[in-house]
Amino acid sequence: MNISHIEHIGIAVKSLEDSIPYYESILGLKCYNIEEVADQKVKTAFFKVGATKIELLEPTSEESTIAKFIEKKGEGVHHIAFAVDNVAASLIEVEEKGVQLIDKTPRQGAEHLTIGFLHPKSTKGVLTEFCSE
Amino acid sequence: MNISHIEHIGIAVKSLEDSIPYYESILGLKCYNIEEVADQKVKTAFFKVGATKIELLEPTSEESTIAKFIEKKGEGVHHIAFAVDNVAASLIEVEEKGVQLIDKTPRQGAEHLTIGFLHPKSTKGVLTEFCSE
Repeated sequence: MNISHIEHIGIAVKSLEDSIPYYESILGLKCYNIEEVADQKVKTAFFKVGATKIELLEPTSEESTIAKFIEKKGEGVHHIAFAVDNVAASLIEVEEKGVQLIDKTPRQGAEHLTIGFLHPKSTKGVLTEFCSE
Repeated sequence: MNISHIEHIGIAVKSLEDSIPYYESILGLKCYNIEEVADQKVKTAFFKVGATKIELLEPTSEESTIAKFIEKKGEGVHHIAFAVDNVAASLIEVEEKGVQLIDKTPRQGAEHLTIGFLHPKSTKGVLTEFCSE
């Protein structure tokens, strides 16, 4: 496995409409894409900061894991996504080293990325995603 | 204010000794520096991932804000640090736009960086740091 950079940081917010102005007017970043990811029950907004994206995640349903995260921990950083060369191989590699996986095999995420999640129980509390284009 | 990239992601951990092996053996990153920041009552370990660092933060006292964070929320992402050209000017700029600051003026952080923190009440739940070399 080779991690090239942090592809994005996922941040749980109650409302994109309330949060985008902070990132644009205060931090001077530009929202370049808003996308709904139906199977994860979220609406996402993307900003670029150097090689890394900030991905705001607004729950579209109370059943969304993002809604449950906000209820338990409040708004804040939800996950970190590392860019790897091969998501499937990377998931197998870390599982062989004892990491518990959320996704045994890759699936499609926002922005046409191939993604897979590791369980935070195995990653020192940080919900961790591998992704590749 | 101009944010060039995410300088580092600060992650609260109970123990560097327990956490460094995960980042090294599982993710394949290399810890290149361990440093104590006495006034923040933390011991830090640094890894590079592209242009961004991961900074693990272990509390050295129960009085440390990191100890209190872990007690309340568990281990996980503690803050995001944006690289800016001028920390003092950036703090003034966001304060004029209504952001509550933790640091009214810059101070010295780990790795000889000039740093200043914004209050998470003003930043949609994400404890946010500005820093420059």
